Amino acid sequence: MKFIRNILNSRSDKDGNFFLQLRTILGFKPNSKSLYIKAFTHRSMNIKDEKGNAINYERLEFVGDAMLGAVVAAYLFDQVPHGDEGYLTKMRSKVVSREHLNELGKNLGLVDLLQSRIPIANFGSNIHGNLFEALVGAIYLDKGYTICEKFIYTRIINPHVDIETLEGKVISYKSLLIEWCQKEKHTFDYNVYEDTGKNELTHFSVKLSVNDKVVAKARATSKKKAEEKASKRAFFAFQKQMTNTR
Amino acid sequence: MKFIRNILNSRSDKDGNFFLQLRTILGFKPNSKSLYIKAFTHRSMNIKDEKGNAINYERLEFVGDAMLGAVVAAYLFDQVPHGDEGYLTKMRSKVVSREHLNELGKNLGLVDLLQSRIPIANFGSNIHGNLFEALVGAIYLDKGYTICEKFIYTRIINPHVDIETLEGKVISYKSLLIEWCQKEKHTFDYNVYEDTGKNELTHFSVKLSVNDKVVAKARATSKKKAEEKASKRAFFAFQKQMTNTR
Repeated sequence: MKFIRNILNSRSDKDGNFFLQLRTILGFKPNSKSLYIKAFTHRSMNIKDEKGNAINYERLEFVGDAMLGAVVAAYLFDQVPHGDEGYLTKMRSKVVSREHLNELGKNLGLVDLLQSRIPIANFGSNIHGNLFEALVGAIYLDKGYTICEKFIYTRIINPHVDIETLEGKVISYKSLLIEWCQKEKHTFDYNVYEDTGKNELTHFSVKLSVNDKVVAKARATSKKKAEEKASKRAFFAFQKQMTNTR
Repeated sequence: MKFIRNILNSRSDKDGNFFLQLRTILGFKPNSKSLYIKAFTHRSMNIKDEKGNAINYERLEFVGDAMLGAVVAAYLFDQVPHGDEGYLTKMRSKVVSREHLNELGKNLGLVDLLQSRIPIANFGSNIHGNLFEALVGAIYLDKGYTICEKFIYTRIINPHVDIETLEGKVISYKSLLIEWCQKEKHTFDYNVYEDTGKNELTHFSVKLSVNDKVVAKARATSKKKAEEKASKRAFFAFQKQMTNTR
């Protein structure tokens, strides 16, 4: 137990809010604190337990990855009744893509909870996804499948997974965005201007505002392309709200 | 509901014992019979639901594979505290290898429950593993994670997974077999004889008997190798009993 207390102390010196922040992310009170400490300990800390086994988040990633795979598989089985095995596999890999998990981990600010001897700035973007997976693993081991499943629904599936988008059925993000703004009584504006800069070809930039606030910018070789690109960016930023109201 | 009744009827014409046999394999009473019917319907039956979606076991395999991955991941996390992520991944792939799942499916006689227009004899050995995965998927969707986990423990982990064997720590299967026979008060006999046949090199064959019954045969270029090979075969045949009493 001694080593755990030590870690706790050192972490609370650095950040007394660790468990407070964690609880906000989890939405419940953790039982086994040491699991979550492990989930946010980088191997550079070089901590070992009494038996000499390394304490860091890497093994928890293995469990988290498996749980994500299972929960998303069951979800897709249910939601995509026409998809065969190969199609479901492809869709799942979109949901739990490295890129997507990195984005989720980043949005939750997981890196702020990390204990590491390597400065955060030196990590690549995969650190966010790795911590997200490790957190899912810790939740499973701490609370069991049902709570873990609920967390995955709350944090990934409900806010971010849209079957139509996954299936590539969304043809125009611009029309999707406009539809959503009209439904929600938001004003929107595509401010397009020529922005060729040092390029040989004419380029256009667009600033997309919703309720007079710039929400996305994009640049492309045609007005239409730039607008679509900005709409797509805004779509992913607003996805939570948009999918809830469609 | 009509199509389900039709399948039920046709299957019970063919084999009135479907649900009786199934219940013996499951160890519990299924809730959603249609899920299990699906798990044992081959695509050659060409059955569709009202919406035109195919009814066969393939989509269930996807769910079963994911559940096997999750349950075995959590088990290994617990049992192999010294293994890093890569090591755990490698061990899991041994447990849920195609070969192993085929063997499990075959031992359970799952193919006897299959409804198919293609004669069973025409299938390769993967049919056994595929049906096993589909059955695990059906159990999850019917009864939830805990019962599914229990089934995986009962059917795979407890009887077949031995961490020491997986870790390659077993050096001699012969000594393992002898140890087990002595403990269990079984007699054993290695009947070795020269069996060069058409080979240029001298070869030896061995018949390994336990309680006066031949349990494994093997042939190799030395007595020792042949004995070890036969012991390994016997070990896998007896693994259930051996791991329970070790």
